[in-house]
Formats: sequence, structure tokens, C-alpha cells
Amino acid sequence: MKKLIEEIAQFNRERDWDQFHTPNNLAKSVVIEANELLEHYQFDPEGGDIIQIGEEIADVMTYCLMLCERLNLDPEEIIRDKMKKNALKYPADKVRGRSNKYNEY
Amino acid sequence: MKKLIEEIAQFNRERDWDQFHTPNNLAKSVVIEANELLEHYQFDPEGGDIIQIGEEIADVMTYCLMLCERLNLDPEEIIRDKMKKNALKYPADKVRGRSNKYNEY
Amino acid sequence: MKKLIEEIAQFNRERDWDQFHTPNNLAKSVVIEANELLEHYQFDPEGGDIIQIGEEIADVMTYCLMLCERLNLDPEEIIRDKMKKNALKYPADKVRGRSNKYNEY
Amino acid sequence: MKKLIEEIAQFNRERDWDQFHTPNNLAKSVVIEANELLEHYQFDPEGGDIIQIGEEIADVMTYCLMLCERLNLDPEEIIRDKMKKNALKYPADKVRGRSNKYNEY
Repeated sequence: MKKLIEEIAQFNRERDWDQFHTPNNLAKSVVIEANELLEHYQFDPEGGDIIQIGEEIADVMTYCLMLCERLNLDPEEIIRDKMKKNALKYPADKVRGRSNKYNEY
Repeated sequence: MKKLIEEIAQFNRERDWDQFHTPNNLAKSVVIEANELLEHYQFDPEGGDIIQIGEEIADVMTYCLMLCERLNLDPEEIIRDKMKKNALKYPADKVRGRSNKYNEY
Repeated sequence: MKKLIEEIAQFNRERDWDQFHTPNNLAKSVVIEANELLEHYQFDPEGGDIIQIGEEIADVMTYCLMLCERLNLDPEEIIRDKMKKNALKYPADKVRGRSNKYNEY
Repeated sequence: MKKLIEEIAQFNRERDWDQFHTPNNLAKSVVIEANELLEHYQFDPEGGDIIQIGEEIADVMTYCLMLCERLNLDPEEIIRDKMKKNALKYPADKVRGRSNKYNEY
């Protein structure tokens, strides 16, 4: 993943785009791209064209990785840390087969 | 990244949560988590607590990875493919230092 | 506002679009249109073209009104009810000039 | 609707909250509230508690009305203007019973 982050950073440096990529702007961008993904499911739960859907997921993840780089966060580390926290919040025995929020248990 | 995806899949299997994770529901979830990230920047462009921000980014990426797994997409591959496409749409010489959309050039 | 809701309902009936307008789809649509609004502020806090911004706000509100109609909610009533609830949660004397969430007081 | 906008403005003035309500922050807030609405449909297309759903719709609309006030837009006027524009883009005879986007016709 580190190599990928470096490739993305290189792409942005070549375009002198870092100036637009404040964390605030990147957070807005993650949301905007997430919504372009959702648009494919707006009126059709099956979701349509897989190529386009893949591109939207890529956009969301790219902005997430840019935000990680900007904030000096390691993406794999924060994902594993969150999973550990979720494992405590949602013990398998207690939540199996249910989609409730943890504060409803 | 493959190992990470497998860990996430394992986490969900243990909880029998796959039944909730249709692509349509995962797309909604990506959007919802992206917004929890944005909340940290709602009234403060500096964004506040870095631990919490990291957790929100982790949530967004986790749902993206679950969606990739569900749709048989390789996250690194779709990110690199999209970057190639963007490199054609936004040639460095033409867009340097500008944030316009490609259809405005 | 009732007259406006009826005009919107009429617009949709003429196109036989009610079949697409489940509450679930309308909720997704509110989010998607809200994001098109946010796009105008993605890299520019000043926000750009006021006509386009007005159109995006109109889209958000239209989907909200359609959702109200579908769920038999009176928009003015739910707005005033929520304001009363907020007045209790955020007493003017306590929160003046601060943007914290109520659970931080 | 004008009376309602004035009540909301009064609520914010009493709390000296106008300083937080730049259009950029309000646009983010519309998106965030829209997502709290969507959360009720995240894993359940039926959507759950109608009172809570009504409150989320109210929040979205309230921020839209605050944005209108801030930008000197009349909400009923922009909604009707957009409907006229949509009537041209989506003539009833052509789009009846279809959910495609106008650029797909």
C-alpha cells in the first residue's frame, strides 16, 4: 500500500495539486466520490455497470489514501486498529446475524 | 492488501453479517462513514481529534474493501487503472496548479 | 407549502415516476443531491455560481418534500417540532457563540 | 415559508451561531444531515422509526432554508424554477415510467 500512496502523491505533485488538498477539502472529496458510487444504486439495487462502479470505489479510496498521507496515518494500521475496537464492541457471540448498532444491545 | 481483505471477511463471517452486505447496502455504508469523517470538519476546517478522524477513514476504507471483495474487484488494480485514466484526462502540462474539472479545459 | 408539494406530486404522476420513489430511494436521492450542492464548495469555500447552487438546494428540498408526502409528514410541522426540541437541547444562555454538540456541554 | 425562515434565523441569532454558518459550512451540514436520514435506511429498506426519520428530514430542510436565507434565495421560487427546467429536460411523453438520466434519452 505504501508504494501505491507514493504513486498517488507523485501524480498530484506533477500537477501541483497539493495546494488544493487540505484535509478539509479531502474530507469533502471523499464524501463527494462516495456519493458518485451511491448514484449507481439510486434507483436500482443491482447497481449497473461494474467498470464505472469500480472507478467510483477507486476514487473514494484514492482520496482516503491522500488524506492518510496528509495526516501521517498508515491505512492498514488504522483499519486493523478499528477492527480490534469493533471486535470488542461487537462480540461475535452477541451480535451474530443481527445488524443493530452497538448501543442497542 | 489481500491479507487485509481476508481479515475483514473473516470478521464478518464470524458475525454472520454477510447477509446485510449487499452491494447496495455497502454503497450506502461507504457514504454514511464518509460523512462521519466530514463531521469532524463541519464547523472547523482544522478537523479536531486525529484518532477519531483516523477511525472514520478506516471505516470508509473497510466498507470499500468489503465492496471490492463482494464485486470481485482488486482495490490496488482499480486505483491504478483510474489513475491511468486520470493521467489522460488531466495531462500534467495542461492542468498544473488548477483545480477545474476536465470538462472545463 | 402544501400547494408546492401538490405541484411536485403532479409532476411525478405525469411521468409515472412514483414507482421509483420508495422512501429508501428518496433517502438516497436526498443524499446524492446534497452532495451535488457540496461539490460547488469542494475546492472553493466561496462556492461559485449562485444559479447552480440554487438549483442544487432546490433538488435537495424537492426530494425532502417528496419524502414528506410519501411518509405523511407535514414539513413545516416537523421543522418547528425539531426546533422546539433543539431549543431544549441548546438553551441560548448556555451555548451562545459556541458550535459544540449538545453532548459536549 | 418566509415566516418559518424568520423563526429559524431568530433561533440562530439568539445563540450567536451565524458566525458558524458560512455557506461552505451550511453545505457540509446539509450533506451531514442528509446522511443521518440515510442511516435509517442503511440495512433496512423499510426505514424504521418515523419520528426519528421526520427529525432528520427537518434537519436537512432547516439547513437548506438557512442556506437560502444566507444566499438571498427564495426556496419556493428556486424549487418551482427547477421544476420548470426539469419539465423541459424530461417531457412527460418521453420519460413516462422510466428512471434514466436525461442524457441517456
